[in-house]
Amino acid sequence: KSHTDPIYRYDTFKILIATDIHLGYLEKDAIRGNDTFVTFDEIMKQAVQNEVDFVLLGGDLFHDNKPSRKTMHCCMEVMRKYCMGDRPIIFEILSDQAVNFSHSKFPWVNYLDSNLNISIPVFSVHGNHDDPTGADGLCAIDLLSCAGLINHFGRSRSVEKLEISPVLLQKGNTRIALYGIGSIPDERLYRMFINNQVTMLRPREDEDGWFNLFVIHQNRSKHGATNYIPEQFLDDFLDLVVWGHEHECKIAPVRNEQQLFYVTQPGSSVITSLSPGEAVKKHIGLLRVKGKKMNLQKIPLQTIRQFFIQDVTLSEHPDLFSPEQPNVMLKVMDFCQEKVEEMLEEAERQRLGNSLTPEKPLIRLRVDYSGGFEVFNTMRFSQKFVDRVANPKDILHFIRHREAKDNIKEGMDFEAILSHPTSEVLQLRVEDLVKEYFQKAEKNVQLSLLTEQGMGKAVQEFVDKEEKDAIEELIKYQLEKTQRYLRERRVEATEEKIDEEVKGGAFKEDLAIIRAKAHRDRSDSVRDDDLNLSDEPADIAVESDEASTSAPTIRGRGRGSRGTSRRGRGIYINIHKHI
Amino acid sequence: KSHTDPIYRYDTFKILIATDIHLGYLEKDAIRGNDTFVTFDEIMKQAVQNEVDFVLLGGDLFHDNKPSRKTMHCCMEVMRKYCMGDRPIIFEILSDQAVNFSHSKFPWVNYLDSNLNISIPVFSVHGNHDDPTGADGLCAIDLLSCAGLINHFGRSRSVEKLEISPVLLQKGNTRIALYGIGSIPDERLYRMFINNQVTMLRPREDEDGWFNLFVIHQNRSKHGATNYIPEQFLDDFLDLVVWGHEHECKIAPVRNEQQLFYVTQPGSSVITSLSPGEAVKKHIGLLRVKGKKMNLQKIPLQTIRQFFIQDVTLSEHPDLFSPEQPNVMLKVMDFCQEKVEEMLEEAERQRLGNSLTPEKPLIRLRVDYSGGFEVFNTMRFSQKFVDRVANPKDILHFIRHREAKDNIKEGMDFEAILSHPTSEVLQLRVEDLVKEYFQKAEKNVQLSLLTEQGMGKAVQEFVDKEEKDAIEELIKYQLEKTQRYLRERRVEATEEKIDEEVKGGAFKEDLAIIRAKAHRDRSDSVRDDDLNLSDEPADIAVESDEASTSAPTIRGRGRGSRGTSRRGRGIYINIHKHI
Repeated sequence: KSHTDPIYRYDTFKILIATDIHLGYLEKDAIRGNDTFVTFDEIMKQAVQNEVDFVLLGGDLFHDNKPSRKTMHCCMEVMRKYCMGDRPIIFEILSDQAVNFSHSKFPWVNYLDSNLNISIPVFSVHGNHDDPTGADGLCAIDLLSCAGLINHFGRSRSVEKLEISPVLLQKGNTRIALYGIGSIPDERLYRMFINNQVTMLRPREDEDGWFNLFVIHQNRSKHGATNYIPEQFLDDFLDLVVWGHEHECKIAPVRNEQQLFYVTQPGSSVITSLSPGEAVKKHIGLLRVKGKKMNLQKIPLQTIRQFFIQDVTLSEHPDLFSPEQPNVMLKVMDFCQEKVEEMLEEAERQRLGNSLTPEKPLIRLRVDYSGGFEVFNTMRFSQKFVDRVANPKDILHFIRHREAKDNIKEGMDFEAILSHPTSEVLQLRVEDLVKEYFQKAEKNVQLSLLTEQGMGKAVQEFVDKEEKDAIEELIKYQLEKTQRYLRERRVEATEEKIDEEVKGGAFKEDLAIIRAKAHRDRSDSVRDDDLNLSDEPADIAVESDEASTSAPTIRGRGRGSRGTSRRGRGIYINIHKHI
Repeated sequence: KSHTDPIYRYDTFKILIATDIHLGYLEKDAIRGNDTFVTFDEIMKQAVQNEVDFVLLGGDLFHDNKPSRKTMHCCMEVMRKYCMGDRPIIFEILSDQAVNFSHSKFPWVNYLDSNLNISIPVFSVHGNHDDPTGADGLCAIDLLSCAGLINHFGRSRSVEKLEISPVLLQKGNTRIALYGIGSIPDERLYRMFINNQVTMLRPREDEDGWFNLFVIHQNRSKHGATNYIPEQFLDDFLDLVVWGHEHECKIAPVRNEQQLFYVTQPGSSVITSLSPGEAVKKHIGLLRVKGKKMNLQKIPLQTIRQFFIQDVTLSEHPDLFSPEQPNVMLKVMDFCQEKVEEMLEEAERQRLGNSLTPEKPLIRLRVDYSGGFEVFNTMRFSQKFVDRVANPKDILHFIRHREAKDNIKEGMDFEAILSHPTSEVLQLRVEDLVKEYFQKAEKNVQLSLLTEQGMGKAVQEFVDKEEKDAIEELIKYQLEKTQRYLRERRVEATEEKIDEEVKGGAFKEDLAIIRAKAHRDRSDSVRDDDLNLSDEPADIAVESDEASTSAPTIRGRGRGSRGTSRRGRGIYINIHKHI
């Protein structure tokens, strides 16, 4: 089946995926000021060239909560230029648009507005940079929405509870349930998850016939105990999670082995910090969905300003210089200059033949000067590169003890943790979480938890005793309790009770995870009658079809572990046709 | 001919005229916060109900140069709601839109954009509140323009020279040449006028077949020597000038007897200052243009917050109180309270039956306490009206010597001056202007004028001599010189020379006026062959068709004094059809 086969195409959604475009970032910079606008233009042009059905954005379209006039103007210009026109749109919206877009003054998808000739609808959640503020709860993309240029979904007015009603899309025989959560402070969303206040509504009709696509804009890396959203919190009926907010491009879908969904992290389309994560080649994604199969093709962005970062540890070059040398500073300077020249040469080499890449690269040389060296004035150094580097003023970054710094900056050990066997992970993470939760949580939250919770006694003991013992005890208590319930009753009936009885803040995270696990267990053990454990080819075949180099094919997974078994959970919505 | 006659309608442009809507004015005020949005809604609804061909705005659609998100959102909402739809638009644009809208990223009128289904195009110049700023020269209405919701015309990039290319509109046999100048600092525009740097282009085809409509957003009242635009500066081929910026509603067209055009001043649609001018009933206009005939119907606005203002001079009530009385403060307070109560009663009476009028009126009592009285604390006074008045905190305004203050605040004696016979006006105004110009102009401007001008000597004498003598001398000098030229040569050929030889800053104003007069004179005397001095009914029949009370019919004027005689002036544009 070729992608150009009309029948295939008729059943296949083509979706351009991008996130964190940060329009207006450094807009006043003489060199980099237009970067975000140029790249946004490239992205939308890609949408046109690839004839996608729609564009899906993961938040932070704007860098500033209140974008400048120029930024808003540029954005509207690009959208009006690329998203309007006579190309027909051949997918339908099956959900109640008045619900999906309830916060909008024009609560329907823009391409069904008879006054607007939309050729490519754009759907977006908001990010933390362009989140709603003020009494009216408006955000920057609501202006686009009011102008009919974007479809802003995934909004909620409540701060305690989320009920996510998907946008239901159908093209031929393919049906997508599009879920989204616009950025919420991580701690708050974390709390909502552990308090079981996040509900993802599911279509009542043909529950398992949908490709469940979810867009989220939160910390994926762990920035503190409750300052991120563990993937394990997310409902496991999802097929693909598009994770915004994280700027490193990790667009190739990664399977979450516990939740059995895939996560793609497109990353930002502009370099907003001179850190290693931003030096990774930037892509957007062309997602094809046919039935329950998907394929994500990486599209490298051509207009991204090059960024080279290199580390130099002065003490590692005793042959070249030592702190005692008379002119050591000059020598170090020469050495650094040489390194920058190397990077500039490499940049030029790579830029050859690519006319879209901006001329001046971003260069960062991190100089570890520990071991008795001194920093030197970077003014003169900058002068040498002022015409060739996009960031002459901050090429050099002096640090001490690189190793330690790195751990703080990039060493989010989330993935390391995930690579442990499950039981170990559980213990590691709970230990960690309990500790950090009670140490760092705001005092009032802590107090209310202490008084509310059924586990007050155990927590009291935790405070009195040695930490490690307490944690072990708590985990044991919680696991036993949970297991007892799971053994005795139907999962759906007990959830609330578990919740009532085990109201210990941090422990709820485990509960949330255990709850998810229990669902999987039950689907394997309790409802065997419902299951199809055949070894037939996977319903979801994921291919990461990298345009450039390595093309690792991610294997699909069997359908057996899913199916209709999760029908007991969640609230169902009826599908209203709104065409 | 009834207005409902289809043929009549087909030839008749119906244009809704409004200005100074000031969206977002006091938007954070708990009581008045929504006033501007409500009234904008009313205005656009009137456009729909009256089935106008287009809406013409005179600037200051927004109150803030950078409108809040809420304001921009409300504006877009109203425009998308009322200006889009299936109603056909039956007038054509004959001018080169790429010229008319050259500053726009989408340089064509919105209703001809095949991606937008516009039912009522809105044309607007920008005002001083929403003027272009920043390196990109964008203004708030450019966002609307980029979103396809407004047609922003009358823009210029030059600060020295204006060349106004009209938007040429045709409906049936009626042709309108729509000129506009977006707000420019008065001094600058004044200077451009006296330096003969303002050119209004005219269509080459059938020059006199056009209804010439001009929108300007400047001081009309004289706020200093060069801090306003005298009507006499404007080209006399104009038929109607829509004057924005001035907030008092003087919408009934007033004939300028020198320039032989009419001026309508719609006034703001929101009360932004508690001064008598704003207490005048507010209207928008429904302008009908058929051929060269026009009719302006006043439409009273229903949603305007009522405003009552009254003056009290304490010393005029010796029977009630004197400064020596022991409890005089309390008595004065009671008296003021009574006055406010009276106004509130009147407000309620007038509001009866009009459900659209906001409940709480604006009340201003100006208390002249001169004559030994003292002011009292207004806090307690405000308290009494906090639930009944929209502006409880500033009901009272204590002043001394009302007479003097008034002269400064409202006493722009422009109209008083105009009521003098022409020769007197000339002298009065020149005297005034010369004096103020040299006293107040920025020093560098003064210097450059002193060195540049051919009249340096005369000015030097002015500085040395008594003022009055100097002025008389200068006027005489200038008049003689001008008259000599006018006698000797063709007007069009001599203009530049006059300009070169008589380069005295302030005197140029007179020159500008004399120049205009000369054109009129020439058209009467030199080109008699071209003229039609018949007593046939006027080509321009103006009726002020007031919806409410007095309906003064302004008489039309004969065509004789105009006609083709002005063909020698200005630069002509060819008409390109862009449909």
